[in-house]
Amino acid sequence: MARKRQKRKLKAGLAPGTALFTGEQKMERLEMSVLRYDADLYEESFPGSLEEVLSELRPGGPVTWVNLDGLHEEHAVERICQRLDIHKLTMEDILSVGQRPKVEEHADYLHVVLRMFMMDGTIRETTDEQLSFILKGNLLLTFQERKGDVFDGVRKRLRESKGQIRRRPADYLLYALMDAVVDNYYPILETLGEQYEELEMELLDNPTRAALGRLHILRRETILLRRSVYPLREVVGRFEKMEEPVVSEGTRVFIRDLYDHTIQVIENIEVLRDIATSLLDLYMNSVSNKMNEVMKVLTIIATLFIPLTFIVGVYGMNFDYMPELKWRYGYFVVLGLMFVAVLGMMYFFRRRRWL
Amino acid sequence: MARKRQKRKLKAGLAPGTALFTGEQKMERLEMSVLRYDADLYEESFPGSLEEVLSELRPGGPVTWVNLDGLHEEHAVERICQRLDIHKLTMEDILSVGQRPKVEEHADYLHVVLRMFMMDGTIRETTDEQLSFILKGNLLLTFQERKGDVFDGVRKRLRESKGQIRRRPADYLLYALMDAVVDNYYPILETLGEQYEELEMELLDNPTRAALGRLHILRRETILLRRSVYPLREVVGRFEKMEEPVVSEGTRVFIRDLYDHTIQVIENIEVLRDIATSLLDLYMNSVSNKMNEVMKVLTIIATLFIPLTFIVGVYGMNFDYMPELKWRYGYFVVLGLMFVAVLGMMYFFRRRRWL
Amino acid sequence: MARKRQKRKLKAGLAPGTALFTGEQKMERLEMSVLRYDADLYEESFPGSLEEVLSELRPGGPVTWVNLDGLHEEHAVERICQRLDIHKLTMEDILSVGQRPKVEEHADYLHVVLRMFMMDGTIRETTDEQLSFILKGNLLLTFQERKGDVFDGVRKRLRESKGQIRRRPADYLLYALMDAVVDNYYPILETLGEQYEELEMELLDNPTRAALGRLHILRRETILLRRSVYPLREVVGRFEKMEEPVVSEGTRVFIRDLYDHTIQVIENIEVLRDIATSLLDLYMNSVSNKMNEVMKVLTIIATLFIPLTFIVGVYGMNFDYMPELKWRYGYFVVLGLMFVAVLGMMYFFRRRRWL
Amino acid sequence: MARKRQKRKLKAGLAPGTALFTGEQKMERLEMSVLRYDADLYEESFPGSLEEVLSELRPGGPVTWVNLDGLHEEHAVERICQRLDIHKLTMEDILSVGQRPKVEEHADYLHVVLRMFMMDGTIRETTDEQLSFILKGNLLLTFQERKGDVFDGVRKRLRESKGQIRRRPADYLLYALMDAVVDNYYPILETLGEQYEELEMELLDNPTRAALGRLHILRRETILLRRSVYPLREVVGRFEKMEEPVVSEGTRVFIRDLYDHTIQVIENIEVLRDIATSLLDLYMNSVSNKMNEVMKVLTIIATLFIPLTFIVGVYGMNFDYMPELKWRYGYFVVLGLMFVAVLGMMYFFRRRRWL
Amino acid sequence: MARKRQKRKLKAGLAPGTALFTGEQKMERLEMSVLRYDADLYEESFPGSLEEVLSELRPGGPVTWVNLDGLHEEHAVERICQRLDIHKLTMEDILSVGQRPKVEEHADYLHVVLRMFMMDGTIRETTDEQLSFILKGNLLLTFQERKGDVFDGVRKRLRESKGQIRRRPADYLLYALMDAVVDNYYPILETLGEQYEELEMELLDNPTRAALGRLHILRRETILLRRSVYPLREVVGRFEKMEEPVVSEGTRVFIRDLYDHTIQVIENIEVLRDIATSLLDLYMNSVSNKMNEVMKVLTIIATLFIPLTFIVGVYGMNFDYMPELKWRYGYFVVLGLMFVAVLGMMYFFRRRRWL
Ligand SMILES: [Mg+2]
Ligand SMILES: [Mg+2]
Ligand SMILES: [Mg+2]
Ligand SMILES: [Mg+2]
Ligand SMILES: [Mg+2]
Ligand SMILES: [Mg+2]
Ligand SMILES: [Mg+2]
Ligand SMILES: [Mg+2]
Ligand SMILES: [Mg+2]
Ligand SMILES: [Mg+2]
Ligand SMILES: [Mg+2]
Ligand SMILES: [Mg+2]
Ligand SMILES: [Mg+2]
Ligand SMILES: [Mg+2]
Ligand SMILES: [Mg+2]
Ligand SMILES: [Mg+2]
Ligand SMILES: [Mg+2]
Ligand SMILES: [Mg+2]
Ligand SMILES: [Mg+2]
Ligand SMILES: [Mg+2]
Ligand SMILES: [Mg+2]
Ligand SMILES: [Mg+2]
Ligand SMILES: [Mg+2]
Ligand SMILES: [Mg+2]
Ligand SMILES: [Mg+2]
Ligand SMILES: [Mg+2]
Ligand SMILES: [Mg+2]
Ligand SMILES: [Mg+2]
Ligand SMILES: [Mg+2]
Ligand SMILES: [Mg+2]
Ligand SMILES: [Mg+2]
Repeated sequence: MARKRQKRKLKAGLAPGTALFTGEQKMERLEMSVLRYDADLYEESFPGSLEEVLSELRPGGPVTWVNLDGLHEEHAVERICQRLDIHKLTMEDILSVGQRPKVEEHADYLHVVLRMFMMDGTIRETTDEQLSFILKGNLLLTFQERKGDVFDGVRKRLRESKGQIRRRPADYLLYALMDAVVDNYYPILETLGEQYEELEMELLDNPTRAALGRLHILRRETILLRRSVYPLREVVGRFEKMEEPVVSEGTRVFIRDLYDHTIQVIENIEVLRDIATSLLDLYMNSVSNKMNEVMKVLTIIATLFIPLTFIVGVYGMNFDYMPELKWRYGYFVVLGLMFVAVLGMMYFFRRRRWL
Repeated sequence: MARKRQKRKLKAGLAPGTALFTGEQKMERLEMSVLRYDADLYEESFPGSLEEVLSELRPGGPVTWVNLDGLHEEHAVERICQRLDIHKLTMEDILSVGQRPKVEEHADYLHVVLRMFMMDGTIRETTDEQLSFILKGNLLLTFQERKGDVFDGVRKRLRESKGQIRRRPADYLLYALMDAVVDNYYPILETLGEQYEELEMELLDNPTRAALGRLHILRRETILLRRSVYPLREVVGRFEKMEEPVVSEGTRVFIRDLYDHTIQVIENIEVLRDIATSLLDLYMNSVSNKMNEVMKVLTIIATLFIPLTFIVGVYGMNFDYMPELKWRYGYFVVLGLMFVAVLGMMYFFRRRRWL
Repeated sequence: MARKRQKRKLKAGLAPGTALFTGEQKMERLEMSVLRYDADLYEESFPGSLEEVLSELRPGGPVTWVNLDGLHEEHAVERICQRLDIHKLTMEDILSVGQRPKVEEHADYLHVVLRMFMMDGTIRETTDEQLSFILKGNLLLTFQERKGDVFDGVRKRLRESKGQIRRRPADYLLYALMDAVVDNYYPILETLGEQYEELEMELLDNPTRAALGRLHILRRETILLRRSVYPLREVVGRFEKMEEPVVSEGTRVFIRDLYDHTIQVIENIEVLRDIATSLLDLYMNSVSNKMNEVMKVLTIIATLFIPLTFIVGVYGMNFDYMPELKWRYGYFVVLGLMFVAVLGMMYFFRRRRWL
Repeated sequence: MARKRQKRKLKAGLAPGTALFTGEQKMERLEMSVLRYDADLYEESFPGSLEEVLSELRPGGPVTWVNLDGLHEEHAVERICQRLDIHKLTMEDILSVGQRPKVEEHADYLHVVLRMFMMDGTIRETTDEQLSFILKGNLLLTFQERKGDVFDGVRKRLRESKGQIRRRPADYLLYALMDAVVDNYYPILETLGEQYEELEMELLDNPTRAALGRLHILRRETILLRRSVYPLREVVGRFEKMEEPVVSEGTRVFIRDLYDHTIQVIENIEVLRDIATSLLDLYMNSVSNKMNEVMKVLTIIATLFIPLTFIVGVYGMNFDYMPELKWRYGYFVVLGLMFVAVLGMMYFFRRRRWL
Repeated sequence: MARKRQKRKLKAGLAPGTALFTGEQKMERLEMSVLRYDADLYEESFPGSLEEVLSELRPGGPVTWVNLDGLHEEHAVERICQRLDIHKLTMEDILSVGQRPKVEEHADYLHVVLRMFMMDGTIRETTDEQLSFILKGNLLLTFQERKGDVFDGVRKRLRESKGQIRRRPADYLLYALMDAVVDNYYPILETLGEQYEELEMELLDNPTRAALGRLHILRRETILLRRSVYPLREVVGRFEKMEEPVVSEGTRVFIRDLYDHTIQVIENIEVLRDIATSLLDLYMNSVSNKMNEVMKVLTIIATLFIPLTFIVGVYGMNFDYMPELKWRYGYFVVLGLMFVAVLGMMYFFRRRRWL
């Protein structure tokens, strides 16, 4: 957590609306793509220069989706925002990674910030980045911290004109991309859930210190994930309630569906939190239990042998006059006595259910 | 939990409204039934083909209840929904098992999703499945994951025309089925409650590790059950507030009664949660207590015998000059001394209330 | 808890509004009483047959209070409800004991359900039962599970015409009876509070396992009591807000007073819950503390004597050549050495504040 | 807690509005004072008889403040209330000590109940009593359980005509008295805070059983204080929102200031609760930690000496044929061996960081 | 905490609106500065006398920012407030340090109270003080407890006319200063976060008592910081909603941005709280775990050697007739037997996974 916010400290004292990227640079140079489509048209291009992109920024006509990967070139973001009359504070938010998810309606554009999680399924590693949307008329801009996103399914549907996506305006594209982001929380949650389940097995069996460390880390991940997901409820809820022309009537029912998914994701996180608490209790009790068993073994052994050791010690004393030592069967009498004492102890342990 | 959501991963990237069953197939082939009734009429049929069912889908006239068991034949669900002009997202929800309970009012139909629990009383095993309702005019559709449900009582009342069910429109049938679902939460809760009670007896008596594992599992079951039941408060509450023609005036008082039951179920779950926490504390404290008792036994034994063993060790030393060893009653003096020491210890233990 | 809900299982599948008593039969036969009064009139009768009671059910004229003890004769309740045009669902609620407290306003009657607690002060035992009210015009019906209630004070005031009760309509009688029920929560709470206080003394002094069991039971009782009392806030709050003719203007200020009492009862329960948690922490910490003390004693004894026992063991060895054994004062040197070692240990223990 | 509610039991069954003092008598006889003032007038008197007081009860003219110390003379309270047309339920509330703080607006008077805390700073002892206000026109009545209050500052300001108090109507006097009550919560909170701080030092240093007991008692005091203070937020909030003529426009800004103080008091209590929880965790962990250290000492000693004692035991055996015993340097070899073993153990303990 | 509120005790009994500084004096004498600017004008002055400042208090014309460091000269604050017709209660609030953050709209001025935190990054020490704002027309007053604040960035922007600050009215200056205060919470939070992270490493590795003490102190700091920050949500939220002329239309969007930051700060604190709880659990479990390991070592050693010591004790007895002692290989048989016993124990420990 600390590493991520390093540059926030630099911000104190700057004018609001200053273009300053607060993250670490994650790719060498800015990459841009432009997609233009309607029911009949489909064009894809990867402009090499900022000037080319600026000339594509047309809010009217067919839907245009401009994507930028890489926020470290603050200057590029600044120029695009200026061209489209985006407020300086919005531009600052795009560059300030570590934003809380939010939606803001401005006079002639909509601004949405989300946290996008991606998972490499084979190694179970998760990366996340800030994702900002600007929706202005039929133009949608997306800003990412680095190359790689969860939008390949949407791109495929666009290219192959699957479903109704090509027949709908840009607000539907915004919905489709947000839906892709939310859909990708599920595998993250499932992996977390699986990790909790594996830990559960282990904890019931043998509560080691390594398992405790892992549980602690899982729990902290759950806390941080919750923080990124929880504000989504309000974001999507407010998006659903927006009026024409921001959200067209046909898109609203889809946003309601997205809202359902968001609630489900949040509930799953709450369940994970409950399970984390439950596992912690399990751990603590397992350790207590184990210690109890260890103690019982120690107590049984000590209780059995310490008195016996005393008795044999008595007859190891070197007094000149100890009549028992002279007896013919003294040794065997003592052995027998000790055997009886052991039986008595055993009975005592059984009654206390220690054996 | 993880197993159930397996196929959600496949969904990422698909167009919204795609017909994809996300559960495991639970029966070999789709089974369908059609019931048509009014005060005088009662017809039951089990169509073998989808075409037959499609021809029965008439929202007007007498009440028609069409039930489908088996969602893996996505194609059948898709065709039925198309015939009735059901929105693609609704159809997707029917097939996406693992939905959160919800009610959605569409332009000309009502969509309700519940989680139906059934219990095999003899082996105390619970199964659950997703249950979706579509109410369109006088036509009610129910979609289940597998054969077997909690509606036999309702079917009997329909057949024998018990109560007023045959004289009321389809919204009353929807109520009656939802009521049957909620009524069946009670035995689940009662069984959970009994299991908690059994555990309580055991924990007070002897807190074993097996009991801890069982408590943990009960607790997780309670968490998951709560998740399915909690949203019902809102679902039934909104259902009650719907207006004509969705809910007819005579049915509303019944839904209010259903709402009461729902609140009661939720409160019972909250009580179970409190009891689970309470049992956990009991367990933890019982273990501590037991360990304390074990420690006391160990300490008493060790404290009694370790000093005595030291004394006898002293007189087991082989020094050439140890005057006591020559004394006539040295041995008996030492024995007496040790006896007095034991009495002193005993007094100390009593004062500390360890004996 | 489990025992009480046994018959709920039987309900699944029945038509709503079916007359089925879900509790255990608590008295041999139904007992009925009828009270009729106004400022000048006062009549008391105990009809032996249902027919007699039915003929007394007049909503107009002087106030009539009809009380029924015993719900197992479902048929009696059913006939009374039919005569007064009470909805079938209300009748079902009267017979379904284990209802959550509630108030329901119907077209021409008011339905209130409470849980009535009674305490036998000498043996500190509490019994509780479901109490239902039907207020229709100037007629008030009360349904109890068994003979015995908390209304003797009200009956006395009626008989002796104390206060204004005889000069007011039936809504005031309803208020007075509900007030009697709520007033009787206080002694229950006080007894619970006393029991917690006794436990507190005991726990601070000597945390036994028996005390733990008692705390657990007290805590569960508090959870269950809370469940019966918590919904009262809403019940009385809604009762207060009802309009003429259900609640007459002069009665409202009394209901507001009742509302105050209800809030106070709820707050007292919350305080008891906090105290229960606090006591549990106290218990756990007392046990830890005691174990710590036990451990210290063990450690002191073991740490003092184990090294000494080793030393005497050394001089108990039988080597042919051990020079010390030949020394004139070897024995006394060793004794002195051990004495010094003990002093060193003592110093160590003091510094760690174990002594 | 139990002691305070003793007489509540007697109330069950009485008519509402019965004059019954539910507390313990705290002073021998009723004491009364009357203050009458406006900008120019200032009169103080201490009537010896009830009749005198009754003749002073004039809601019009200059501000009149009548104070009663001692509620056990129920008859006096009853007569005053009757003279001013105070509702019987209000009178009952004045006499029922243990009320929750509240404000009630009646047709022509305002009724406020608070809990007044006073602290004797030198012995850190707190007393509290119920304080009731009746504001009717320009007449303010205050009812206290016993002599002694927190109003000396207000009396001084009245006498010396400090600030604007003499130029304002009786609602400002009510505000000033309530403000004095709230101002006196601060020293209570500060003393509690200091006690928590002292405990913190002690717990970090040496967690004794006495400290645990004290923490438990502090915590319970915090719970009970919170209960008296929490409802104040609503009381003062509603007081602020009252309209002319109850609250005059110039007084409202002062009540808003009082509201601020109330919120601050509540927040301070919440902080104390958090600190109590935090201290409890600290205690528990300190005890565990100490026990861990004790265990380590025991284990080190036992692990060092038990094996050595075994070795010397071996050479203390009396077998006829034990070759080592005959060796010239057997004794020294064994001593050396044991020394090496001790060094090995030490290394093991260091590696585990026990030393 | 206690130290800070010392003087609150003195306040009890004073008239509301009395000028009394409740903090400790933190600087020798009052220091004042006046800044006057618009788009073209920029004047800075440091008046040495109160009279000079009083003559600068002009709500009209260019923006005027008057800053006072040092509240112990109550008289200065009082005279400034009188000159500007500030309510006596506002003046009292300015001098009563330890206020909860709040915003109050008066007829012709706005009053804001915040808590300003500053951090000395190198030594990680935080200081905080109360900061009050009075906004009246184009005049902004700031009152600080001591010299030194977080406004140097704003002063630089004013001097160099960076951004739009010089072209906007005084409400924007108020925003800019509040924004600087909130921006400075981030480094505090980051440092807290780093300290938690360092502790986490340490706790997982070796849970010492010193770490526990540090965790407890961090946790208390988090509680107290939360208390200062939490009310900000409401303060900034209400500030945003204020209307012209208090907040000009162009400033509102900036306040909304400030609101975002506030929410983020609050969420970060909540995450820190969760992490503190999580670390506490980690600590407790680590200690339990360590104790468990210690116990295992003790038990293994004791269980291995105590029985062996008994056996050698047996053959150290001095009975005249003990046949084994005469055997030729008795000694070696016993040694072998003990070796086998050790192997058996080892097997037992392995099976219990203690080794
Ligand atoms: Mg800034
Ligand atoms: Mg923005
Ligand atoms: Mg921003
Ligand atoms: Mg990316
Ligand atoms: Mg989705
Ligand atoms: Mg959060
Ligand atoms: Mg999708
Ligand atoms: Mg849908
Ligand atoms: Mg859906
Ligand atoms: Mg089924
Ligand atoms: Mg039902
Ligand atoms: Mg849930
Ligand atoms: Mg423990
Ligand atoms: Mg039913
Ligand atoms: Mg009903
Ligand atoms: Mg019912
Ligand atoms: Mg009864
Ligand atoms: Mg009452
Ligand atoms: Mg409840
Ligand atoms: Mg009463
Ligand atoms: Mg009243
Ligand atoms: Mg009252
Ligand atoms: Mg007093
Ligand atoms: Mg005050
Ligand atoms: Mg309370
Ligand atoms: Mg004051
Ligand atoms: Mg103010
Ligand atoms: Mg103030
Ligand atoms: Mg300063
Ligand atoms: Mg900022
Ligand atoms: Mg706070």
